[in-house]
Amino acid sequence: MNNKTISGFSKLSKRGKLKWIVENFFKDPEYTMKELQSYWHGNEDQQKVIDGFSENTISNFILPYGVAPNFIIDGKEYVVPMVIEESSVVAAASSAAKFWASRGGFKTTILGTTKIGQIHFLWSGDKNKLIAAMPSIKARMLKDSLDIVSNMVKRGGGVVDIILKDMTDKEPDYYKFTVSFETCDSMGANFINSCLESFSKSFCEWCMEADGFTDAEKDVTILMSILSNFTPDCLVKAEVSCPVEDLGIIDDLPPEVFAEKFAKAIRIAHIDPYRATTHNKGIFNGIDAVVIATANDFRAIEAAGHTYASLSGSYTSLSHCTIENGIFKFWLVVPLAVGTVGGLTALHPIAKFSLELLGYPSAKELMSIISSAGLAKNFAAIKSLITTGIQKGHMKMHLQNMLTQLKASDEQVLAATEYFKDKVVSFASLREFLQSPHEA
Amino acid sequence: MNNKTISGFSKLSKRGKLKWIVENFFKDPEYTMKELQSYWHGNEDQQKVIDGFSENTISNFILPYGVAPNFIIDGKEYVVPMVIEESSVVAAASSAAKFWASRGGFKTTILGTTKIGQIHFLWSGDKNKLIAAMPSIKARMLKDSLDIVSNMVKRGGGVVDIILKDMTDKEPDYYKFTVSFETCDSMGANFINSCLESFSKSFCEWCMEADGFTDAEKDVTILMSILSNFTPDCLVKAEVSCPVEDLGIIDDLPPEVFAEKFAKAIRIAHIDPYRATTHNKGIFNGIDAVVIATANDFRAIEAAGHTYASLSGSYTSLSHCTIENGIFKFWLVVPLAVGTVGGLTALHPIAKFSLELLGYPSAKELMSIISSAGLAKNFAAIKSLITTGIQKGHMKMHLQNMLTQLKASDEQVLAATEYFKDKVVSFASLREFLQSPHEA
Repeated sequence: MNNKTISGFSKLSKRGKLKWIVENFFKDPEYTMKELQSYWHGNEDQQKVIDGFSENTISNFILPYGVAPNFIIDGKEYVVPMVIEESSVVAAASSAAKFWASRGGFKTTILGTTKIGQIHFLWSGDKNKLIAAMPSIKARMLKDSLDIVSNMVKRGGGVVDIILKDMTDKEPDYYKFTVSFETCDSMGANFINSCLESFSKSFCEWCMEADGFTDAEKDVTILMSILSNFTPDCLVKAEVSCPVEDLGIIDDLPPEVFAEKFAKAIRIAHIDPYRATTHNKGIFNGIDAVVIATANDFRAIEAAGHTYASLSGSYTSLSHCTIENGIFKFWLVVPLAVGTVGGLTALHPIAKFSLELLGYPSAKELMSIISSAGLAKNFAAIKSLITTGIQKGHMKMHLQNMLTQLKASDEQVLAATEYFKDKVVSFASLREFLQSPHEA
Repeated sequence: MNNKTISGFSKLSKRGKLKWIVENFFKDPEYTMKELQSYWHGNEDQQKVIDGFSENTISNFILPYGVAPNFIIDGKEYVVPMVIEESSVVAAASSAAKFWASRGGFKTTILGTTKIGQIHFLWSGDKNKLIAAMPSIKARMLKDSLDIVSNMVKRGGGVVDIILKDMTDKEPDYYKFTVSFETCDSMGANFINSCLESFSKSFCEWCMEADGFTDAEKDVTILMSILSNFTPDCLVKAEVSCPVEDLGIIDDLPPEVFAEKFAKAIRIAHIDPYRATTHNKGIFNGIDAVVIATANDFRAIEAAGHTYASLSGSYTSLSHCTIENGIFKFWLVVPLAVGTVGGLTALHPIAKFSLELLGYPSAKELMSIISSAGLAKNFAAIKSLITTGIQKGHMKMHLQNMLTQLKASDEQVLAATEYFKDKVVSFASLREFLQSPHEA
């Protein structure tokens, strides 16, 4: 009889877990055991580090570790490490990187690095008393947390602000503290959560000891103390731009036509949420690949980015395009709360190599690199969609079809094929061409 | 002199790529080369498969492959494979699975399996002509794509509908076709994109040949033909429920208190986008871990899920909780366009084992499994946040602090500690307890 549930599984050894799994769920237990073990790393210490990241591990899941060379970001050359199982993403990023390397490269701006934590609590009483007490409550919170924050303060970070928000119009007795943090080169999740837990405790104690508070007012129910993964103030902008004519002929499209079509594709991603989702998904193909390669948390990055994309009330594109005064400009604004110290960055054996490959970037520099990778991927995707994706092979065929339709002579077919090689063909323009004297 | 940019990199052998990288970007090229090679899989054919997923690969990035046992989903037992680098996710999912296994397990409902593709195009003319022509255009599209769809039709899927949408109020000359698909057990991206490209071609040809169309009307500019990653109609609901008292005492909280606090935490995730982002991020910790383990595309899943969470105009929680007639009910509704055939599912060596471990599920069954893992993770996270996360150790300390504050005698301290062991302590209830006759 097979056994499909188990008690005490987590207490089994790794081999014991694997044995129970293969014996109860696999047709060929021996083969499966051998195969899953073949993915264990030869160096046992290394393997223990990996196993330590999670629980109930029985093997390693491998993803291809690739690189996109020739990125010029803020004047510096990078080879960008990317981890992704989807084909064409690394190739697309590489080709866009090379394209823009000869056109000034990627320029980035850090628009903010502030992160947010929240303490959600229930409190019943005269809210003016709470508002009036805020300076004293804040002082107590900060005093009690000195041990936790001192290191971060030394590195130039710490607690930026603590703000009380009355949410009682939404839910009875519900208030929250919104705490903002500067976490320097760390992503800061542990630091933020430790601070918040300490603040919650201090707040409860402060209320309990508050002279002017009634018994009810002394009672605080802390619901949750936790960082927010929505980080709209930890934000980066990555941009590429050049005179339209410098775009050159791209897949048979003259630069002005390419630029116009490209801008239209971006506008559609702003208009249509069904398109915006796919559009941004492509951006995250590039972003996540670098996030994973540097052992940052891609679920946090995805959650923040997509929430940011929905801020206007309608889910929309994270990238933007303008053509003004003959200049083609394409940019991405995205929240990226990432770290280059702490977390798994120094623990994951391959992530360590990623950071060395990138020249040990600061968290800000990593924001610049990741956003550039996202923008590069987006540029390549839109370029392909509006040209070869549909058009390249197709438009050539389309021209021949139109010529047949218009009963063009063999001579006209040759002339038109030559003439429209680097032009967008349309029914009207083709008819005009065929009827013009120089072709008569 | 170091060389930080390169031409023809993609044409180098894997070893050649690695060599150029380590020589130009690493302090200790030999060591780095050896280390990165140590992650290559011993079986060269296996390694080639992995390398084939992406481009410019130089090594493998490994993530821990763990399992969460004791999931009962729609009455069937599962051990769920999870790939994640974040600690506690697998442990949390396992503990929630076990908790609910003795309370009826997870129940799921497939709310839809339809996927969407779009053809965005520019067309200038009398739109009533286009509307009138739709039956004929559709017939032509379907006829021309018979070769592409015949296999899918045999499997019970195919093209469901093609709808013309006039978008000219948003952008001049902009129209789109929204095409809905049934893709059975495949995620269907390639199938959908192939159909759309074929439809675009057919549409261009149809217009060109249309008798009543002017030259301008014969000219269609296809902007993009591509699937949408927003799949609100490929949707699953996963649910757990039980009488409130069956929840039992959870981390010192009586069941009614736990249920009330839990429901409040979920309501806050509905009210506050900053909380919702983090809340949903936790759900995706569970979801993505299974998505990756089965070689599905987590960027697509994330993009769809977060867009779905923003549908109301304000980003909000994907999970819901009610306490009605003494029944605690907790559920998740999330779009999940996943496949169990095609794509990388049968190519990734470990994903193949994941599918065998899950008993070779259909795409629908996988939707049920993944949503249950997401709900399990969410349950465990909220449970921890509203109890031990802040409260467990803390509340015990809090009680002692309050007793000191109220100048309780040693005898009272002992009695109160015993009395409040399984109750929520508040300042008011404690004062009442200390003043009550049985404690006098």
